[in-house]
Amino acid sequence: MEETFVPFRGIKNDLRGRLMCYKQDWTGGFKAGLRILAPTTYIFFASAIPVISFGEQLERNTEGVITAVQTLASTALCGIIHSIIGGQPLLILGVAEPTVIMYTFMFNFVKERPDLGPHLFLAWTGWVCVWTAILLFLLSILGACSIINRFTRVAGELFGLLIAMLFMQQAIKGLVDEFRIPERENPKLIEFLPSWRFANGMFALVLSFGLLHTALRSRKARSWRYGSGWLRSLIADYGVPLMVLVWTAVSYIPAGSIPKGIPRRLFSPNPWSPGAYDNWTDMLEVPVFYIIGAFIPATMIAVLYYFDHSVASQLAQQKEFNLRKPSSYHYDLLLLGFLTLLCGLIGIPPSNGVIPQSPMHTKSLATLKHQLLRNRLVASARRSIGKNASLGQLYGNMQEAYQQMQTPLIYQQPASQGLKELKDSTIQAASCTGNINAPVDETLFDIEKEIDDLLPVEVKEQRVSNLLQAIMVGGCVAAMPFLKMIPTSVLWGYFAFMAIESLPGNQFWERILLLFTAPSRRYKVLEEYHATFVETVPFTTIAIFTIFQTVYLLICFGLTWVPIAGVMFPLMIMLLVPVRQYFLPKFFKGVHLQDLDAAEYEEAPALPFTLATESEIGAGATYAGDGEIFDEVITRSRGEFRHTCSPKITSSNATPANDPQSLRSPRVPYSPRVSELRGERSPRMGVRGSPKTGEPKLSTLGKSPQN
Amino acid sequence: MEETFVPFRGIKNDLRGRLMCYKQDWTGGFKAGLRILAPTTYIFFASAIPVISFGEQLERNTEGVITAVQTLASTALCGIIHSIIGGQPLLILGVAEPTVIMYTFMFNFVKERPDLGPHLFLAWTGWVCVWTAILLFLLSILGACSIINRFTRVAGELFGLLIAMLFMQQAIKGLVDEFRIPERENPKLIEFLPSWRFANGMFALVLSFGLLHTALRSRKARSWRYGSGWLRSLIADYGVPLMVLVWTAVSYIPAGSIPKGIPRRLFSPNPWSPGAYDNWTDMLEVPVFYIIGAFIPATMIAVLYYFDHSVASQLAQQKEFNLRKPSSYHYDLLLLGFLTLLCGLIGIPPSNGVIPQSPMHTKSLATLKHQLLRNRLVASARRSIGKNASLGQLYGNMQEAYQQMQTPLIYQQPASQGLKELKDSTIQAASCTGNINAPVDETLFDIEKEIDDLLPVEVKEQRVSNLLQAIMVGGCVAAMPFLKMIPTSVLWGYFAFMAIESLPGNQFWERILLLFTAPSRRYKVLEEYHATFVETVPFTTIAIFTIFQTVYLLICFGLTWVPIAGVMFPLMIMLLVPVRQYFLPKFFKGVHLQDLDAAEYEEAPALPFTLATESEIGAGATYAGDGEIFDEVITRSRGEFRHTCSPKITSSNATPANDPQSLRSPRVPYSPRVSELRGERSPRMGVRGSPKTGEPKLSTLGKSPQN
Repeated sequence: MEETFVPFRGIKNDLRGRLMCYKQDWTGGFKAGLRILAPTTYIFFASAIPVISFGEQLERNTEGVITAVQTLASTALCGIIHSIIGGQPLLILGVAEPTVIMYTFMFNFVKERPDLGPHLFLAWTGWVCVWTAILLFLLSILGACSIINRFTRVAGELFGLLIAMLFMQQAIKGLVDEFRIPERENPKLIEFLPSWRFANGMFALVLSFGLLHTALRSRKARSWRYGSGWLRSLIADYGVPLMVLVWTAVSYIPAGSIPKGIPRRLFSPNPWSPGAYDNWTDMLEVPVFYIIGAFIPATMIAVLYYFDHSVASQLAQQKEFNLRKPSSYHYDLLLLGFLTLLCGLIGIPPSNGVIPQSPMHTKSLATLKHQLLRNRLVASARRSIGKNASLGQLYGNMQEAYQQMQTPLIYQQPASQGLKELKDSTIQAASCTGNINAPVDETLFDIEKEIDDLLPVEVKEQRVSNLLQAIMVGGCVAAMPFLKMIPTSVLWGYFAFMAIESLPGNQFWERILLLFTAPSRRYKVLEEYHATFVETVPFTTIAIFTIFQTVYLLICFGLTWVPIAGVMFPLMIMLLVPVRQYFLPKFFKGVHLQDLDAAEYEEAPALPFTLATESEIGAGATYAGDGEIFDEVITRSRGEFRHTCSPKITSSNATPANDPQSLRSPRVPYSPRVSELRGERSPRMGVRGSPKTGEPKLSTLGKSPQN
Repeated sequence: MEETFVPFRGIKNDLRGRLMCYKQDWTGGFKAGLRILAPTTYIFFASAIPVISFGEQLERNTEGVITAVQTLASTALCGIIHSIIGGQPLLILGVAEPTVIMYTFMFNFVKERPDLGPHLFLAWTGWVCVWTAILLFLLSILGACSIINRFTRVAGELFGLLIAMLFMQQAIKGLVDEFRIPERENPKLIEFLPSWRFANGMFALVLSFGLLHTALRSRKARSWRYGSGWLRSLIADYGVPLMVLVWTAVSYIPAGSIPKGIPRRLFSPNPWSPGAYDNWTDMLEVPVFYIIGAFIPATMIAVLYYFDHSVASQLAQQKEFNLRKPSSYHYDLLLLGFLTLLCGLIGIPPSNGVIPQSPMHTKSLATLKHQLLRNRLVASARRSIGKNASLGQLYGNMQEAYQQMQTPLIYQQPASQGLKELKDSTIQAASCTGNINAPVDETLFDIEKEIDDLLPVEVKEQRVSNLLQAIMVGGCVAAMPFLKMIPTSVLWGYFAFMAIESLPGNQFWERILLLFTAPSRRYKVLEEYHATFVETVPFTTIAIFTIFQTVYLLICFGLTWVPIAGVMFPLMIMLLVPVRQYFLPKFFKGVHLQDLDAAEYEEAPALPFTLATESEIGAGATYAGDGEIFDEVITRSRGEFRHTCSPKITSSNATPANDPQSLRSPRVPYSPRVSELRGERSPRMGVRGSPKTGEPKLSTLGKSPQN
């Protein structure tokens, strides 16, 4: 993306890019059929549960002015609008923790002003939203998002880890509070006797750890050995919501012998207050002085939203996902301005792009796409084998099936060249072994495994899952009587689950782990995460860089604890951008920085094909190994390759890296697969691994021979 | 072992075999140094905790006549004597659940006889022990143990699984009871209010699942990625006792805010009653009628001990462990008779060989031996590399070091031929790659991994660990004030841990799992457990066989619930021997039975080298893969190979299978390793896998090329 500050250019480019694939966004989604419900439900829970919990938090902090009903309404409304007319449909919107912190701060301010008071709180925040919206409009029109590629891994991953820490903190705090008497409750109740409080706390421990453990296990169901394939898929897809149901049911088991308040359950929010939805009438009552003063919190919120929205969008579109459709930072920021305005006017807290839900959404869609592709190719391969086809024909048919699944987008050259390359190399390899024309036998050819090996990471980019989950969040308002049955402790377990789910793939986190890895086992990191930096950067450099980043993270985390200055923590993360650009290069070698934190604006020194660098890195990113490895790839192994490792990959499209249209350069769909890099014992297989020709194993057929 | 019923011959053979290695049993143990403490502590906990718990059970059932002090004393006394003058020092003795059941039954009988009464209970059981001892003497002298090889896998593994079920049942029952008011307690106490009872139950859930989860995790510490090697070793070796300490400490965290009785802790046994140790004086008061009547329960106990002791010994000496020292079934049974007599006379319940502690003992000694060998070879390799040695020299030096670690036993030919074979093939393979004379570079040659690949499963067979653990159990009597601090819930978690730890390696269990394995993933079982039957026996046959065995198991388990007939469950398992021999062959093909349940008395049909069969199977049994795999091998992958898989292995000693001296035929120390059979994708590598010559990987040097 070029850094242009010509007004409206960014928005225009975004719109043009997304409009070209708008229709496909819908048709593609509907074509996926019922399977789309898997990522939808997964994200719905990840979106709704924190929003309900934040709503409860706001209700306590704002003396009931804002409740979970309002946060749910905002999330649903903004989600529906964004999924229909937004730019990047992978982005999930919701009321986030920073918004809660800001609103709490503003409520405390308003409460003490006699000329405002709690009854004008929503009206005043309405004005804050108006100002915020204006600032967001300005930022988006002037192209502020074009500096998004200065938000390197360092900033984005630090922010991601910070959010994970906040989620985990909430989980721990929630669990500790289960042993205490809640503030708003009557301490005379039977369930607040010391014995029942202790019992409640212990029960909460059982429920939350139960949920956490089983939810984490269920996500790996696809690689279980037991149970039939569809059952394993079902558990992997719907395991987490299912576990929420199961543990909620478990919480009712001892119901007969314990007081009604144990375990504690979600608090019933106040009913929808009459007069909501017409906040704008109150807004005129706010004194002019405060209308102008609202500009001050608005700047904070604008910076926060600018950063949060863009980074959430960026994390949902990481290179490892090999997205094919363009990004839409400017236009989405513009739309966020409108949404903020709308929320302000009807008196609900605004939503913005959320972490970790947005990257979780993309991950779950990658799993979906993988399964769709897989099913199609398996069917095609079975048909070919049924017809006694040779291996060459079989691959031909599979390639055709694959091709049919690809919807060439208007602005792209058809993405077939990479495939053709694959086919050629496949056939070449097959003829080496001399059995290209012999009929294939299913007992020899493990179809499902072969196909899993062939498939690259791709994402089902569409709007349906986002729209559906937003509608379901809206449905939660009606379903509050049912939601009230969920124990709060299950919630805390779920928070911990979300924190843990967001860690894999975060290279910063993986580097922290690397510091604790025994030296003799460091090569394993390379094997599993494809983290080239382990190989190219001296360990002390990695350690210093990681310790610096950790200290920075802890400072940011500490800031969130400071009562008022806490809302400035996004500024602290924004500050990382200049720190990364001007300060770090003084302490670290350029090559090392490039490996640890590839910034596109820094040219890779001393490497020939700089022009094609970007698309090469993209192409070599990460590919699915076998079916079970796949989950791992998606969730764990999203490190990057270095282009020197895959000298054979040539960009199939001649799209230059600095595409003036700032569209994503199309990815080469096939290239070295994880399976090639796994299973080798040498930690240097990328450099030393010599080709093994003449191996009789069919699994090598998909590899492009190097000679 | 030949089936001979000539009086005393079995005992004589056993004594001769064990005497020859008696000195080495001690020197070998002391040479291991402090490391011997790892298996010692591991087994001490596995031995002491159930014995304490059984003691509590007996105390309740015998109205305090027998307490945990007595069960501990019996376990310690018998353990010390057996470890010093017993035959097989791998066998662990202890008061077992069947003994508890028998003693409970006898107490209920005595209680209702006015001419006996509780005060003559111990005196009467003394007479039962006398009769039992006489029966055991007869059985052992007449060579009853020589039919031990009719106790095939079917019987032994069924018994192992039954014990695991009993342990798990105890764990669940214990946990459920944590929610109830204990019988012997005053229900008016504050901790038995419904609220505190519920709190206690929930706390118990947290503690027991915490212990179970962390203990299981800690056993796998050796393959963790984080932490330095010694820390990981320490955790793997001492993790389980450590976790008992940790969770006991955790149980004290809320001590300030809860009543003293929560969580429930071990009950303090009555003080050592005066007049104990001279039970024989009371024995003369027992009416003659009852002295004769004691013969009836004595027959039951004798059958039980005969079976239990022999099977525990057999499971501790499974072929997969490649033991080098001879077995000692007859002599050990004779000694058991003396021990039973001794216990009866001093008025404590007798001990016998226990499952799963005995096989756990062998497993932990295999881990110890592996580490000792590994350290020695790593040091030797490092030294060689330091001297710029070539690969040939390096292997030569390593082999020399290995040789020094082997103590050739008097009755064996030196076990060097297998090694020589290895060396030759190593050098041959090395010369293929052309670098045999080039100096070895440590960066290229991953010493620790290579050595892990080379090492076979071997067991540190000695008497020191058994003696020490028995002494420590004795120390528990003095340490009762400390033991009383352990929460009962930690105990239940430990019971579950023992049940789970005993499952891997049990082929019956693995076949049950296989029934639930998705058909497409069944080949994985073959990859991991080397269970050849998966390949050679039709799935329906496996299923029917396993279902039959499961039904039989459930019948046995059901029997243990029947009030009085329950003590007959060992007869039910003994019945399996004729069932296996005469009934099963009518329903299953001989070849299939051979694969599912290799019985040495059935000749393998249609296979050429019948004479060498036994030693071949033994030799090909199981070998250590790499360091992390090793734990897995020891604990999980103890299935057997089929000899057709390793046609190259020739018995290095010409000892015929039916060695008239009934000594264990020496094992060939080197042969195909797990690593050779892992990593291959084809489920038929044993049959189809063609040799890969000219591969540059050093890891293949240890393999014997097939051409």
